[in-house]
Amino acid sequence: MSHTAELIAVGTELLLGNIANTDAQMISEGLSQLGINVYYHTVVGDNPERVRQAMDIARQRADILITTGGLGPTCDDLTKVAVAQAFGRTLVYHEPSAQRIRDRFAAMGRPVTENNFQQAMIPEGATVLDNDWGTAPGVAMEADGIHVLMLPGPPRECEMMFRHRAVPYLKGLSEGVIVSRTVKTFGIGESAAEALLRDLMNSLHNPTLAPYAKPTGTELRVTAHARTEAEALARITPVVDQVKALLGDKVIGVDVSCLEEVCYGLLKERGLTVGTAESCTGGLLAKLLTDLPGSSALFRGGIVSYTNAVKAGVLGVPQTLLDQYGAVSPQVAEAMARGAKAVLGCDIALSTTGVAGPEPDDRGNPIGLVYLGLAWGEQCQVVPLHAGQVDRDRIRRQAAQTALDLLRRHLTGL
Amino acid sequence: MSHTAELIAVGTELLLGNIANTDAQMISEGLSQLGINVYYHTVVGDNPERVRQAMDIARQRADILITTGGLGPTCDDLTKVAVAQAFGRTLVYHEPSAQRIRDRFAAMGRPVTENNFQQAMIPEGATVLDNDWGTAPGVAMEADGIHVLMLPGPPRECEMMFRHRAVPYLKGLSEGVIVSRTVKTFGIGESAAEALLRDLMNSLHNPTLAPYAKPTGTELRVTAHARTEAEALARITPVVDQVKALLGDKVIGVDVSCLEEVCYGLLKERGLTVGTAESCTGGLLAKLLTDLPGSSALFRGGIVSYTNAVKAGVLGVPQTLLDQYGAVSPQVAEAMARGAKAVLGCDIALSTTGVAGPEPDDRGNPIGLVYLGLAWGEQCQVVPLHAGQVDRDRIRRQAAQTALDLLRRHLTGL
Repeated sequence: MSHTAELIAVGTELLLGNIANTDAQMISEGLSQLGINVYYHTVVGDNPERVRQAMDIARQRADILITTGGLGPTCDDLTKVAVAQAFGRTLVYHEPSAQRIRDRFAAMGRPVTENNFQQAMIPEGATVLDNDWGTAPGVAMEADGIHVLMLPGPPRECEMMFRHRAVPYLKGLSEGVIVSRTVKTFGIGESAAEALLRDLMNSLHNPTLAPYAKPTGTELRVTAHARTEAEALARITPVVDQVKALLGDKVIGVDVSCLEEVCYGLLKERGLTVGTAESCTGGLLAKLLTDLPGSSALFRGGIVSYTNAVKAGVLGVPQTLLDQYGAVSPQVAEAMARGAKAVLGCDIALSTTGVAGPEPDDRGNPIGLVYLGLAWGEQCQVVPLHAGQVDRDRIRRQAAQTALDLLRRHLTGL
Repeated sequence: MSHTAELIAVGTELLLGNIANTDAQMISEGLSQLGINVYYHTVVGDNPERVRQAMDIARQRADILITTGGLGPTCDDLTKVAVAQAFGRTLVYHEPSAQRIRDRFAAMGRPVTENNFQQAMIPEGATVLDNDWGTAPGVAMEADGIHVLMLPGPPRECEMMFRHRAVPYLKGLSEGVIVSRTVKTFGIGESAAEALLRDLMNSLHNPTLAPYAKPTGTELRVTAHARTEAEALARITPVVDQVKALLGDKVIGVDVSCLEEVCYGLLKERGLTVGTAESCTGGLLAKLLTDLPGSSALFRGGIVSYTNAVKAGVLGVPQTLLDQYGAVSPQVAEAMARGAKAVLGCDIALSTTGVAGPEPDDRGNPIGLVYLGLAWGEQCQVVPLHAGQVDRDRIRRQAAQTALDLLRRHLTGL
């Protein structure tokens, strides 16, 4: 039997346009992977009557209702009250949730204010979804043949609660299994990937193949529905191989989350350490390289040489190079990488120098032009990146990601 | 008379989670500025019957319906057909729109395919909203006392059409304005802020006061509805002052986006430069300090001293300190800040050293313990932060933000 879900986001901040409903996007993507249909999203404000009305409409057209938001102490746990009323349940005190709230505040070294304990009130007969990422617990309940899942609104909390609490619950509702594998790419856009894969995509039914544009690179998701996981994987594997063959060296891995993770695995395997010298990325590259636990074994350190004085004084970039070619040049990118390698004592050093905007530099280099360096042994490779006249944040992210891709290609000998 | 609008987004890509409904955010923000209430957003797929149903529900609860998407040739102009049906209108051919389509394709040097002319079919009696940013014209119509505005879905087109076509139309309908000011805080949670402000919040009707939890700190938004902007501000200002008085030094500013921005203004005003020495934050603090354009005038550079060798070799932290107290200690935080100040040649240097997890360090320091240093002149201040046993990313973000808050407090003499 196939299920239909409907999403109800509760939050006046959404109706005022303070934030976009990214929770709905995240959950919709997850439901699509589970093979659950979604026909409507609704957004409603922090108003009990209107939340109740939205609930009454949704229960007529879906058998799974997923709410986001309205669980925190400041909104009087609006969502739980509305759901309890809509389904004729009363709210009961849930001591384990109250204890979790006490523990969490104790761990943060903050006193618990009384309003936080509203979060421990749960519709009778419902299941608490423990929230390890915030204070408000989630709730799952079944009533009148309808499953209602209530998740907190803050996007990160919502994502963790959906992935680790809602998804296992929802998997229990469907027959058979749905298994996905994700081919992660870097350096190819969604539409270019789609053009290369169109024939394959159109020829498939189970598994399906769908592209997703992510900030960290286009993902190709292969999803199969089958009786067992082994059967699903047997359907998926040949398609993953075809996708890899069609996209070639743009593929950075399968079921990997990001370039950092791939680089980490490669550095560890080869017993190498890395360091950074950053200008335009301003610390972002080092930040990415230290995002993952255990990075201290592989990442030695970094220099954010934002001014020429630091490039010369700390990294030892010759003043003559800075004068002759300017900070945004292949020569300086090379000297920065070589300097970082020497100063930090790492096996491989990455460098970035470019124009993040919003203005071109004083030598007329265009916004979006970045040079990336990679020094190892006595050698150094420099590549230019033309990120285009996009915004500062995007140029910096693309420069840092491209530097990581340079490292990946170096380590895999591409 | 006050108006109530409802947004209906048409597009299966929204229900599959391929994109977030950013059109709704943009339009909601615009409507809030026009003093038009928004109680619901609905998202529905490219399905005529369900679009029609969403329309029937929305017209019961709002007098302005704004649709986005479903106007292009690839979706058979779904939205216009559904609206025409819902309000009992027929679609008629609109020659000026057809001519615009011909002209537009001619300008692009491409032949017009026949399906494009569907876009020139308009509900009878409706007004065409010329689209200078794409091919599909928008439509405005009034029927049964309800105003329906149909805008294209692609975000940039939607924004231009909303701003330049819908807003002038809506201004003709609305009375008064809504104005908001936002008090931004750091170091106080949403529920603690609410506890301090509850009496004030409960005593207010116009303006209203509402807390918002943002990743960068709790925000308190004061919103007034009035005939003119000046009148709205006259209502808002005393409440903003009360909030500032109640929250004291937790307030970092009014209508500011983040600590970086506040620090920037203060550094600029005082003609000072800053630099960083980071261990656990791994480059994040430098990244934040270089997020804003123009940062090169204020930020000299940073050292990510992730290993003790870099702390000693680059920052000159005495090996004896590292041996005696360990890297996570007030002594090392101080030496890092003083070292960075000397090496980078900045007026003020910030340092971070702590345990981001997922494991305690080898000296038994707990996860979440971070020391933050600030060196200026011959002086240095070190403060401990107990971020708690939360995840790595959150500890790192909180440490970097707290370092910025230390800088803010130093610069404002708190």
